[in-house]
Amino acid sequence: MIKSVEKAAVLIEALPYLQKFAGSTVVIKYGGNAMLNDELKKNVIQDIIFLKYVGIRPVVVHGGGPEITAMLEKLGKKSEFVRGLRVSDAETVEIAEMVLVGKINSEIVKLLNFYGAKAVGISGKDADFILAVKHLAKVQEDGVTKEVDIGFVGDILRLNTALVENLLDKGYIPVIAPIGVGKDGATYNINADYVAGEIAAALGAEKLALLTDVEGIYRDYQDKSTFISTLSLAEAQVMIKDGSIEGGMIPKVEACIKALAGGVAKTHIIDGRQPHSLLLEVFTSEGIGTEVVKYRRYISG
Amino acid sequence: MIKSVEKAAVLIEALPYLQKFAGSTVVIKYGGNAMLNDELKKNVIQDIIFLKYVGIRPVVVHGGGPEITAMLEKLGKKSEFVRGLRVSDAETVEIAEMVLVGKINSEIVKLLNFYGAKAVGISGKDADFILAVKHLAKVQEDGVTKEVDIGFVGDILRLNTALVENLLDKGYIPVIAPIGVGKDGATYNINADYVAGEIAAALGAEKLALLTDVEGIYRDYQDKSTFISTLSLAEAQVMIKDGSIEGGMIPKVEACIKALAGGVAKTHIIDGRQPHSLLLEVFTSEGIGTEVVKYRRYISG
Amino acid sequence: MIKSVEKAAVLIEALPYLQKFAGSTVVIKYGGNAMLNDELKKNVIQDIIFLKYVGIRPVVVHGGGPEITAMLEKLGKKSEFVRGLRVSDAETVEIAEMVLVGKINSEIVKLLNFYGAKAVGISGKDADFILAVKHLAKVQEDGVTKEVDIGFVGDILRLNTALVENLLDKGYIPVIAPIGVGKDGATYNINADYVAGEIAAALGAEKLALLTDVEGIYRDYQDKSTFISTLSLAEAQVMIKDGSIEGGMIPKVEACIKALAGGVAKTHIIDGRQPHSLLLEVFTSEGIGTEVVKYRRYISG
Amino acid sequence: MIKSVEKAAVLIEALPYLQKFAGSTVVIKYGGNAMLNDELKKNVIQDIIFLKYVGIRPVVVHGGGPEITAMLEKLGKKSEFVRGLRVSDAETVEIAEMVLVGKINSEIVKLLNFYGAKAVGISGKDADFILAVKHLAKVQEDGVTKEVDIGFVGDILRLNTALVENLLDKGYIPVIAPIGVGKDGATYNINADYVAGEIAAALGAEKLALLTDVEGIYRDYQDKSTFISTLSLAEAQVMIKDGSIEGGMIPKVEACIKALAGGVAKTHIIDGRQPHSLLLEVFTSEGIGTEVVKYRRYISG
Amino acid sequence: MIKSVEKAAVLIEALPYLQKFAGSTVVIKYGGNAMLNDELKKNVIQDIIFLKYVGIRPVVVHGGGPEITAMLEKLGKKSEFVRGLRVSDAETVEIAEMVLVGKINSEIVKLLNFYGAKAVGISGKDADFILAVKHLAKVQEDGVTKEVDIGFVGDILRLNTALVENLLDKGYIPVIAPIGVGKDGATYNINADYVAGEIAAALGAEKLALLTDVEGIYRDYQDKSTFISTLSLAEAQVMIKDGSIEGGMIPKVEACIKALAGGVAKTHIIDGRQPHSLLLEVFTSEGIGTEVVKYRRYISG
Amino acid sequence: MIKSVEKAAVLIEALPYLQKFAGSTVVIKYGGNAMLNDELKKNVIQDIIFLKYVGIRPVVVHGGGPEITAMLEKLGKKSEFVRGLRVSDAETVEIAEMVLVGKINSEIVKLLNFYGAKAVGISGKDADFILAVKHLAKVQEDGVTKEVDIGFVGDILRLNTALVENLLDKGYIPVIAPIGVGKDGATYNINADYVAGEIAAALGAEKLALLTDVEGIYRDYQDKSTFISTLSLAEAQVMIKDGSIEGGMIPKVEACIKALAGGVAKTHIIDGRQPHSLLLEVFTSEGIGTEVVKYRRYISG
Repeated sequence: MIKSVEKAAVLIEALPYLQKFAGSTVVIKYGGNAMLNDELKKNVIQDIIFLKYVGIRPVVVHGGGPEITAMLEKLGKKSEFVRGLRVSDAETVEIAEMVLVGKINSEIVKLLNFYGAKAVGISGKDADFILAVKHLAKVQEDGVTKEVDIGFVGDILRLNTALVENLLDKGYIPVIAPIGVGKDGATYNINADYVAGEIAAALGAEKLALLTDVEGIYRDYQDKSTFISTLSLAEAQVMIKDGSIEGGMIPKVEACIKALAGGVAKTHIIDGRQPHSLLLEVFTSEGIGTEVVKYRRYISG
Repeated sequence: MIKSVEKAAVLIEALPYLQKFAGSTVVIKYGGNAMLNDELKKNVIQDIIFLKYVGIRPVVVHGGGPEITAMLEKLGKKSEFVRGLRVSDAETVEIAEMVLVGKINSEIVKLLNFYGAKAVGISGKDADFILAVKHLAKVQEDGVTKEVDIGFVGDILRLNTALVENLLDKGYIPVIAPIGVGKDGATYNINADYVAGEIAAALGAEKLALLTDVEGIYRDYQDKSTFISTLSLAEAQVMIKDGSIEGGMIPKVEACIKALAGGVAKTHIIDGRQPHSLLLEVFTSEGIGTEVVKYRRYISG
Repeated sequence: MIKSVEKAAVLIEALPYLQKFAGSTVVIKYGGNAMLNDELKKNVIQDIIFLKYVGIRPVVVHGGGPEITAMLEKLGKKSEFVRGLRVSDAETVEIAEMVLVGKINSEIVKLLNFYGAKAVGISGKDADFILAVKHLAKVQEDGVTKEVDIGFVGDILRLNTALVENLLDKGYIPVIAPIGVGKDGATYNINADYVAGEIAAALGAEKLALLTDVEGIYRDYQDKSTFISTLSLAEAQVMIKDGSIEGGMIPKVEACIKALAGGVAKTHIIDGRQPHSLLLEVFTSEGIGTEVVKYRRYISG
Repeated sequence: MIKSVEKAAVLIEALPYLQKFAGSTVVIKYGGNAMLNDELKKNVIQDIIFLKYVGIRPVVVHGGGPEITAMLEKLGKKSEFVRGLRVSDAETVEIAEMVLVGKINSEIVKLLNFYGAKAVGISGKDADFILAVKHLAKVQEDGVTKEVDIGFVGDILRLNTALVENLLDKGYIPVIAPIGVGKDGATYNINADYVAGEIAAALGAEKLALLTDVEGIYRDYQDKSTFISTLSLAEAQVMIKDGSIEGGMIPKVEACIKALAGGVAKTHIIDGRQPHSLLLEVFTSEGIGTEVVKYRRYISG
Repeated sequence: MIKSVEKAAVLIEALPYLQKFAGSTVVIKYGGNAMLNDELKKNVIQDIIFLKYVGIRPVVVHGGGPEITAMLEKLGKKSEFVRGLRVSDAETVEIAEMVLVGKINSEIVKLLNFYGAKAVGISGKDADFILAVKHLAKVQEDGVTKEVDIGFVGDILRLNTALVENLLDKGYIPVIAPIGVGKDGATYNINADYVAGEIAAALGAEKLALLTDVEGIYRDYQDKSTFISTLSLAEAQVMIKDGSIEGGMIPKVEACIKALAGGVAKTHIIDGRQPHSLLLEVFTSEGIGTEVVKYRRYISG
Repeated sequence: MIKSVEKAAVLIEALPYLQKFAGSTVVIKYGGNAMLNDELKKNVIQDIIFLKYVGIRPVVVHGGGPEITAMLEKLGKKSEFVRGLRVSDAETVEIAEMVLVGKINSEIVKLLNFYGAKAVGISGKDADFILAVKHLAKVQEDGVTKEVDIGFVGDILRLNTALVENLLDKGYIPVIAPIGVGKDGATYNINADYVAGEIAAALGAEKLALLTDVEGIYRDYQDKSTFISTLSLAEAQVMIKDGSIEGGMIPKVEACIKALAGGVAKTHIIDGRQPHSLLLEVFTSEGIGTEVVKYRRYISG
């Protein structure tokens, strides 16, 4: 049982954050366990609606790797990856789009509306929102860098944010599937972390929050005592180069870097397995996950 | 070779229609061959963009039965129909949604944008646009009417047109997938003709045009000389009752009836196999297909 | 120390209230101890700013009896009361206005701005906001009802809410001193509770909250077990008539009745001595003080 | 009889032009035979209304030389010209204004409205739209250049386009009589071609179309095979200097040059004797008359 | 020399009228000597601009009989009248339009602009502003009422005030020539007094002021002591019937009656020969001319 | 008795001023006798309302020294001054605020509303309108400049004019009490002349008019023949330095200098004892008081 005086304390703790974020845009990359576990899913949905109702403009970007893999399997196609990117022939990207746009996006939109928001799902094809170009993958083989054709995997060429801004201005929560369209009309599969980072920059967001399945970033992944609560842009770049940051954490940190470079004030890698981690990150002084910022005041790790 | 004087004549023939339809809304149900054949597809897309550029507000509703059936087959599920409606268990409706929203809708949006419009795809889940309830199917068996559970097939309960109107006001062409959402969050498959008819009524459209794969309606399907170019609402109701109109033409004519009852001025069943039939219907005096109107001035058949 | 999980719980408990009150107007009558004690003062100011930052439109009405009495004393004038109303000759009402408008109102405005809001102080003279007429006081003497002239004490004749609504629309918090103006230009002292009740009605407020120095209403003031958490309009009227509600509580309950009759959804008599009672009342399920509603669902006392 | 397929072809041929000109301004100088012959008059009026109804903002400028001459004659005044400009004493310019504003302009406005537009006639005096200064005419006499006073013939000093833009924004077609007003209130007769050219520049028009009574420009007027379909600004200047362009064609070509220098994309000298030449020029690939452009891609003549 | 104290007195005398007429519309029928004498002309123009600059929306309607007669004479046509209306064959109405629109209207517009306003001249043809029908003239001959065809003389069928209101909203002074247009496109000459009366009614004007060449209305024209300063609508109707009001005063009084019936508060017949009579009527307590009102408080004559 | 022709002359004399000042802002410092004498008070109020009704945006700033002194006396506090500034301890500034905001400001607002305007009283605390810092007073003692602490007397740090502009845009007359607020929430007493000068500059006013109790500025106060009707900014600075301008005239002239430096076109020191001096200054060619301008055309004194 929480006492009245404690309730008041929590609400008043939120006041400076309410004042700070009033009217600002917050981009949330929604993925990982928080998308699979029903209870966590409800938590995230509520957190986003909370943001909306205190005057913040939330924008949701989602991924969907596991579900794409599952559908490909059902249809008898094997998933192949090059440096973490799914090799995507025409059929693969078509199935990926179907799953992302027609299943995962629809589901998130439905849940947001069910819990009281007005959400609208869009992909990069709507109003040519995400213009993409073919990604040039490079692999090292026998000490030689070679280009590999991994098909319809795209890089972002340009974001036409007018549609997203129209939706925000009308009070809708945009839910974005990471599908891009080429100038020739081709469909491209794009990493959702990158999409989130670029959108945060393009919208002049105050904050980018990436939900993931780890507590945050460690200097040494083996040693829990090396947890980093605040990381500067420069440090992050060094840690990617020297391999301290690796695997699936790379696109997340790169998305943070993109966003920061584009003017976003703060970026966060948050543990989506902790209930309401998003809410706690935004409205309390709790230390949740790792924040990546342009400049760091002091060393926290 | 068309001569200058003829070109001028065609353009001037269009003038009264331009004046009549300026600023009005036209709902187009896009389906059938015009969705499968690439050349016809391009024609329809151009026709819709033409409408847009002369100051009409086009709204596109599409179906996708054959592609849903194909995908179900790939995934090893048999398609079953009761009175023309697909029996839809939870898995079926999920796949139907994926195909409609993530494949067909995306494709139409992409083509419209590619040819120069700004289109945005939405389903009934976006901003809870199409609220649906479970359809109660009835079959006659041994002279007895019985209810049959055909799963997640929906009837329209209410349309929240704010999102569509916001998009139209901002100059976008809304492309609508016929998926509805229940108050409990369930997904419903809805007949696209009905969706088109109801949307035309809800938006106060000037015109509803249903693209199909026949020339129009015949009094006697066997006898080409019995073609009907104009049908009144009352006549249409009689022809459904006495069985003259049957099969897939029933939902089309019922959609026309819904639209007319809701205030739409004219409804049209158009042969989508004829190139640019939509354009010819709207901007010329050509007799294209069958029009269903509230009251008929004279017998045409 | 409050744990993260508890913080999240408190915030999420607030969500339905955020959704319910988004964009609505809440009128707060600020008075009593919460206006004298510095810590409580800060609490109330923060609560009002909290309301503002979650999208509510707060309107503040204040009294100032004790400070008026103190100033009159300093100036060598005795305060005299008839049935709880201050007998106000021309000099008295001039001093009352000076204290209310030039001291108390200024102070509240300053504090709200200091803690981060944009507040604007107004009295009923600004844009002729509160049109007043002379109050006809009646006393019982020897079983006979007589009119007594108590000077420039006013009843509200009409509220011109345009100024308040302009200020609200521009994002200001209006802080209102209970001074009215007659058609002849005379200044009137008006009971602040009545002003709050009438303004709540005139603005179509969602809620009226009266801060006072008691826990709420008791059926029998001597017996703490008879505390009433919910009172219907009809019950309140009976309790005033039969004397169960008396003294300074009368104008508060009458203000609630006025507000409810004018369409306000809920009215509250709140204990201003409890820190953040306003915040707890609006955003938690805590039972704070007595609410007076149009119809009551069940007996709570 | 034009076949359906041909009709569709003509309409689709217009689509890229509809897309290109949507929302842009087109200035039409209306004069010559197209103003005298009733059938041609109707054609031009229809063409202008067509432009209006496909989302273009047409602006009409007209002349009226022959009618002014006729009225002067009726009133017993002889028309005298110096280098193509009418010598205008006070009485002449008063009569010219009367005929231009009170007869020709009224007639065009009436016809546009009769065929379904909303047109409004204005002269340069309305809201001081065309500020003019006295034109300094120069003639060569015995090898000496002399100034000649030709009275109230004006050059454009400044255009106050606010009125025209207000009318366009409200959906009206402005019809402009080429009368200017001096700072001293004097009335000036201004060449309509020049007015059209300057207005096109001042409004940032996409296109200027001058209707005239010849097919276009020839390198050698005697030799029909020397017809020029595209002329660059530089070539035009040379041809005026070397006398290849002469007489009434000079102000037309100079108007094109003014417009192009002011940012208009394309200018056209169109044969007003050909029915619907304006429509064909704008919405088809037909080669109609001579276009004068800033830079020419290739030699066409 | 006027003393300071007197100047202040005059300005302060104007204050209640400034307050009363702020934002209201005043229709001025401008005609008679005030249109011919240069000094009076300047006075009226200044008065209208004064109205404009103190926040009134002036609308000017003008006549032009004498100038039309003069032009017809020059062109060798005789002017013929039936009951005060000019018999107008096609040529006559064309000349009347030319003079009204192309000469008188242009002149008033020019003067208003010259003295610092932004005026725009319009006729009933602009945006089909004044829809007219043929006037059926009736004459008494040998005790029998007969219809006489007097040609293109029109009655007002309907006023489309959108154009006038757009111009007023943008701060322009509309100057209106009394030319109407038939549904068949025919041009009609309409009495300017009637046009002024109907426009005042259609615009919901506060005041209609008709400038004329007499001091006002007399009960007995011969006896200056019978001057009427205030006349009720009912009295005016009686005086027209019994012949006390006759000749050119009839359309003026009928215009007042039309305006009053249409909701105009006050109408005035003002002596245009007195300098600044319009200004004095509107902004001082001076008795200028005869006012016709709906109901009269007391007999003034 | 003023004759009609004279009345017309006075009104027409005002016309160029009406044209010049339409839509502009005029700041009036209201003080001195014009605030104490009832007839003069009414005159000034009427003048301000006159300004409002001819389309000017008046802003009123008032002082209140004598009334503050009187109230301090009543409360047994002595008034002490250093170089014309009231030494203000916490209690003094509280009383000053009470009198300025709660008495004088209220009274002016009431009178303006009573005579037909919509006035709103504000102090520098409303929306943190006047941010102030402590004034550093310096005195010369035995030839040494020393700082003296005179308490809560403030200098203007920054003006947040949004509130004033919102009120002006909505048609209200802002009436400003010269109270400022520190960043720490302290209350500051500020010289009203300075407030008027700074506000005029901040609002881009056309004119600043300071009502005072003398005729204007004299070169030699003893010699009435040295009256100065026009003074340049440079001359004013010299006259302050050399002591020709002294005492209470210093802040007035400095306010003019501030305003002129900030872009105000003209500033005026007006004799508030002359009835309607404000009106005469603005709308007539009368020479009223002394005007201080950026540059002077000719010597007038």
